[in-house]
Amino acid sequence: MRAESTNLRIRLPVFVFVAQVTIVALYAAFVTYDDQADARFQNNRTNPMENSVYKDYPIFTDIQVIIFLGFGCLFAFFRLYGFGGMVFNLLTAAFSIQWAILVQGYFQFSHDGKIHLGVINLIYAEFACAVVLISFGAVLGKTSPLQLLVMALLEVPVFAVTEWAVLKYLKINDAGGSILIHLFACYFGLGVTFVLYRPHLNEGHAKANTSYQSDILSLIGTLFLWVFWPSFNSSLTLKGDDQHRAILHTFIGLSASTLTAFALSAMLNKNGKITISEIQNVTLAGGVTVGASVDMMITPAAAYALGMMGCTVCMLGYKYLSPFLAQRFRIQDQCGIHNLHGLTGLISCAAGICAILMADEEMYGPSLYEIFSHRAPVEGDPKLHELQILIPGLQPGLGRTAREQALFQVAAVFSTIGVSTLGGILTGFVLKLPYLAPPSDVFCFDDQLFFEVPPDYDSPLKLNNLVTTDDSAA
Amino acid sequence: MRAESTNLRIRLPVFVFVAQVTIVALYAAFVTYDDQADARFQNNRTNPMENSVYKDYPIFTDIQVIIFLGFGCLFAFFRLYGFGGMVFNLLTAAFSIQWAILVQGYFQFSHDGKIHLGVINLIYAEFACAVVLISFGAVLGKTSPLQLLVMALLEVPVFAVTEWAVLKYLKINDAGGSILIHLFACYFGLGVTFVLYRPHLNEGHAKANTSYQSDILSLIGTLFLWVFWPSFNSSLTLKGDDQHRAILHTFIGLSASTLTAFALSAMLNKNGKITISEIQNVTLAGGVTVGASVDMMITPAAAYALGMMGCTVCMLGYKYLSPFLAQRFRIQDQCGIHNLHGLTGLISCAAGICAILMADEEMYGPSLYEIFSHRAPVEGDPKLHELQILIPGLQPGLGRTAREQALFQVAAVFSTIGVSTLGGILTGFVLKLPYLAPPSDVFCFDDQLFFEVPPDYDSPLKLNNLVTTDDSAA
Amino acid sequence: MRAESTNLRIRLPVFVFVAQVTIVALYAAFVTYDDQADARFQNNRTNPMENSVYKDYPIFTDIQVIIFLGFGCLFAFFRLYGFGGMVFNLLTAAFSIQWAILVQGYFQFSHDGKIHLGVINLIYAEFACAVVLISFGAVLGKTSPLQLLVMALLEVPVFAVTEWAVLKYLKINDAGGSILIHLFACYFGLGVTFVLYRPHLNEGHAKANTSYQSDILSLIGTLFLWVFWPSFNSSLTLKGDDQHRAILHTFIGLSASTLTAFALSAMLNKNGKITISEIQNVTLAGGVTVGASVDMMITPAAAYALGMMGCTVCMLGYKYLSPFLAQRFRIQDQCGIHNLHGLTGLISCAAGICAILMADEEMYGPSLYEIFSHRAPVEGDPKLHELQILIPGLQPGLGRTAREQALFQVAAVFSTIGVSTLGGILTGFVLKLPYLAPPSDVFCFDDQLFFEVPPDYDSPLKLNNLVTTDDSAA
Repeated sequence: MRAESTNLRIRLPVFVFVAQVTIVALYAAFVTYDDQADARFQNNRTNPMENSVYKDYPIFTDIQVIIFLGFGCLFAFFRLYGFGGMVFNLLTAAFSIQWAILVQGYFQFSHDGKIHLGVINLIYAEFACAVVLISFGAVLGKTSPLQLLVMALLEVPVFAVTEWAVLKYLKINDAGGSILIHLFACYFGLGVTFVLYRPHLNEGHAKANTSYQSDILSLIGTLFLWVFWPSFNSSLTLKGDDQHRAILHTFIGLSASTLTAFALSAMLNKNGKITISEIQNVTLAGGVTVGASVDMMITPAAAYALGMMGCTVCMLGYKYLSPFLAQRFRIQDQCGIHNLHGLTGLISCAAGICAILMADEEMYGPSLYEIFSHRAPVEGDPKLHELQILIPGLQPGLGRTAREQALFQVAAVFSTIGVSTLGGILTGFVLKLPYLAPPSDVFCFDDQLFFEVPPDYDSPLKLNNLVTTDDSAA
Repeated sequence: MRAESTNLRIRLPVFVFVAQVTIVALYAAFVTYDDQADARFQNNRTNPMENSVYKDYPIFTDIQVIIFLGFGCLFAFFRLYGFGGMVFNLLTAAFSIQWAILVQGYFQFSHDGKIHLGVINLIYAEFACAVVLISFGAVLGKTSPLQLLVMALLEVPVFAVTEWAVLKYLKINDAGGSILIHLFACYFGLGVTFVLYRPHLNEGHAKANTSYQSDILSLIGTLFLWVFWPSFNSSLTLKGDDQHRAILHTFIGLSASTLTAFALSAMLNKNGKITISEIQNVTLAGGVTVGASVDMMITPAAAYALGMMGCTVCMLGYKYLSPFLAQRFRIQDQCGIHNLHGLTGLISCAAGICAILMADEEMYGPSLYEIFSHRAPVEGDPKLHELQILIPGLQPGLGRTAREQALFQVAAVFSTIGVSTLGGILTGFVLKLPYLAPPSDVFCFDDQLFFEVPPDYDSPLKLNNLVTTDDSAA
Repeated sequence: MRAESTNLRIRLPVFVFVAQVTIVALYAAFVTYDDQADARFQNNRTNPMENSVYKDYPIFTDIQVIIFLGFGCLFAFFRLYGFGGMVFNLLTAAFSIQWAILVQGYFQFSHDGKIHLGVINLIYAEFACAVVLISFGAVLGKTSPLQLLVMALLEVPVFAVTEWAVLKYLKINDAGGSILIHLFACYFGLGVTFVLYRPHLNEGHAKANTSYQSDILSLIGTLFLWVFWPSFNSSLTLKGDDQHRAILHTFIGLSASTLTAFALSAMLNKNGKITISEIQNVTLAGGVTVGASVDMMITPAAAYALGMMGCTVCMLGYKYLSPFLAQRFRIQDQCGIHNLHGLTGLISCAAGICAILMADEEMYGPSLYEIFSHRAPVEGDPKLHELQILIPGLQPGLGRTAREQALFQVAAVFSTIGVSTLGGILTGFVLKLPYLAPPSDVFCFDDQLFFEVPPDYDSPLKLNNLVTTDDSAA
């Protein structure tokens, strides 16, 4: 009933144990505590309550809920793929974070030959993990756990290098991660699914549908994401008023896109009914759309408008663009990540650029040069000295104008899309290696292939057959 | 199969887009950041870590979980109305909060012609939203999403005015919102359902029942509410020991009512079995009952006793009063909000009044005049000066005696019940307008009317018919 | 259809009301607020924001999620015992906490004849509650709610005395509770289930299995535990870098054990498929294994290795040891607590002892004497004075060497196992009293016995029969 080529008995343990032994060796060689977690760095002037863990941990737990419960439930929307959605999410997430600790650590948190570990690294690593999980959305149900692990193995370093290069050389503003997280993840995922194209799936698949319970489970995932998204978008802003604004804008954006999603769902349905898969996804568009400008002084009204716009574009994407991409461009995007992360990410970047162009001292006061740190005057500029009286601790910047900053943002968008698409395509080719146990078309979206399932897992299906038979007999 | 009059294709988008355009225009004209979220207000004496967001946001996320996950799951208890329960909750909540930001902002957070927005406003707005959602409980399954939005549109301003008038003129103590939230929401909801009376539903409805899965889902909602209720009850107390007591009392009250609920459920059932719908609701009674006195020095034992009493009254309400109200008084209270919020709210108010009458300096020390701020001496009273040495920053009060304060509490209870009942009845008449797409009796409690549902959504029903048929054949 | 002897109509209310009246009387007589929750202790030098509630409450809510949602969902894995799993967990937890507040209060938080209550006591009480719930796992589905309440009634005091004696006289390091929580709970539970042995269950039970939905529900419980476990393990460490490390180690341990669990599950299954019940449980092994050394300077790599080791032993326990214990030693361990808490707890203790033996000032700096407070020099030792210059506020210790401390840890392990096993066996005999309504073998794992269930609760079962009949007819 199932091809030997998908048997995980040997290949999954081999991959996992090789990876784990390598990781534990690298941790032993290179990972140590950062100065907030190391007992030796505490002395008689240390106030334990000022440890960074008290700033970082509350945000970290919120992001944990997003990653493990939010994505986990959201991905469980297929009727026969609830186990796969939830636990491959868990597996992929756990591996991505372990691996990102090392790779991001090498690029961003290493000095004296060591990676210095604190809860802040875990937050960064969970961002890298979110990137992998969003890309996973494009190939959900069509990949083996082994393929997912290999995808994470390759995507994390490409992401970490891009993140590092963009932040170090282009020096952009992207608090909510619209460019680095959403656009990167989306185009990487589309690259992968493009290569893994399965022509037969375009004709519809008997198992690619939902049940009442799986829809409700997925809705719970949506609600987890909805509730904790402000924490996600505000986790890497400056502390204080910046983080405060990020929370307000994210909430307002989500709240606006939720209303719009209901209206559009009823409007675009020929019976005027609401489609639950649209509520599961499109309500969240506002969280992405406010991302790039989330900590700026854009006004609450602009956050609201961004939520409505992002939602509209996302909904139109689900209705019209996704089927088109699948039919014409071989891009089978299972969860519609191009709509929820790509299109909305692009709007978010555009909005961010507008907000950057309009930012001036009148609107921000001197803290303009903290938020847009690269617009601060260069070392030696007398203006820097003036500002440092107003804001002690202000770092010298690059003296960029608003326009220059905007151009760097544009450069970041294009280079991120380029790198991620290419990375995704190459990763896709690696994932085609036969050893990686891809499911055959007929076993896509089916837990039976990789799990021992209880006898009732397809009972609604059986029931429908039964009822049909009876009806036909009657 | 369904009347045209419930087609949402035009009317829902029309309402939503008109509302959204209006809201975004009002936000643009009147909503700005408060001084904790505005970059211009930060200067070289600002400590970002002292921003109010760090006090308010943890409470806010807990309340978000209550509103979106807690109420959402709890309302999904009908077998065929899981989508409706969860997503109409989401829709109504998102709209109520947006709208409350404006209305409460106008009454409570405006100066210089602007509403000043911070996370604290969102907390207040989520309280207004909780009011709407509790009222929603009375009409769950019998209303279209359009009716719910109109109800929110009308209830939020009535609530905001009442809240403002009671706090400004009657100046009451009601930390947990027993009067302003629970009583208001309950009697408003009863007013609405009174007008929307459907005689046929009293004869029982084929779809007004639960399934095993929907009961479990609803239980998860109960647990979310249970776990985070201390945050809800303590969110608007004074900081420090007051908030500490509020958390302790809420936990103890809930914990006592949980035990009592199991005992009564088995005792009042003729087979000695536990009824799960009682566990879903009655366990929570303690959280309401401690509300009005939650921050006072009532002792842990009194919180425990209040939990037991509230639970008992609530349970008796479900068993005996609700059917009576439905049969004799045309009050069809779908979730039994009169038991969980009305009766318990009244007990809570009575307990609050007792606690106020017993409060003295011996029990509270000088901080008596902080908790009961209207009992502080008036400006110019030498006693005020003495107290200000003990508590720097104590504001002059109204010099009320305990008895006077108690009378104002009584006045607040009666005026709140009066205004909310009247508001609910008038709102009920508005909701009868034909344009608002009320479901016909037969499509109450049925997702099919407003949603595209997967084919298995009523499979247990089909199955039972099938089994019955087989049995009868045998 | 059901024996009178399991009717709860009288016996459950009698037990509950007697318990509640006793508890409320004891609260009234002995429980008062601690100085952080008592209004009288606030004065003009009190900073409300420094109230201990702000340190303790965030941890407390995380543990609440673990106890009520995590355990609740995890225990709902039986197909026909979802209500029982979730709500007997709620009932037992609520009672255990109320009761632990008194018992632990008497041993640990009483002075001047009063128990002083704050949120910190609730955290301790939820630890005692976790102990009861873990033991509950051994007898899940085979006990009446009355038996569970009696078990909690007896287990809480035995635990509280053990905890108090071990902490006061043996003075051990056990931040994550590997000895006091996991080992105690495990061997107590095994003692109980040993006495409650039911020979017929070893032949397999028609209802002791899962459904697709119940498996998914249980997975959600796993994810709640996974996400919030770092809060559990770090809640009673010293503040600052110690808590920071505890969070890091717990996360890394869990993350490592998650990967290993997937690999072993596929490897040990004859079809190379993943078994979902193993994912539900074995992924969590890492959280227990790092427990005893969770706040020490063990290095991230060691936390990773502990996660892998704990997971491996736990998995082998589920596969080979549990069936063996059930067949040969009359130990029917329903949730496999011996694997997830016993075996991993023992590894954790061994690792803790190694970490203690290796701890020196080079690794920890002078804060060695804070973490291992009993190794601090005794009063009068000149070395103490030197250290107090480096760490103001360092308390004199017992001058123990690393080796002595290790021996005390060993003593704690053995005495805890001894006391808990004995306590469990004696409790088991009490639970056999006929009045306590134990379910007959045939009604084990069946909600029908103690709940009014909706008609579809066993529909998958009915369906399978139906399908089978049809097949056989065809």
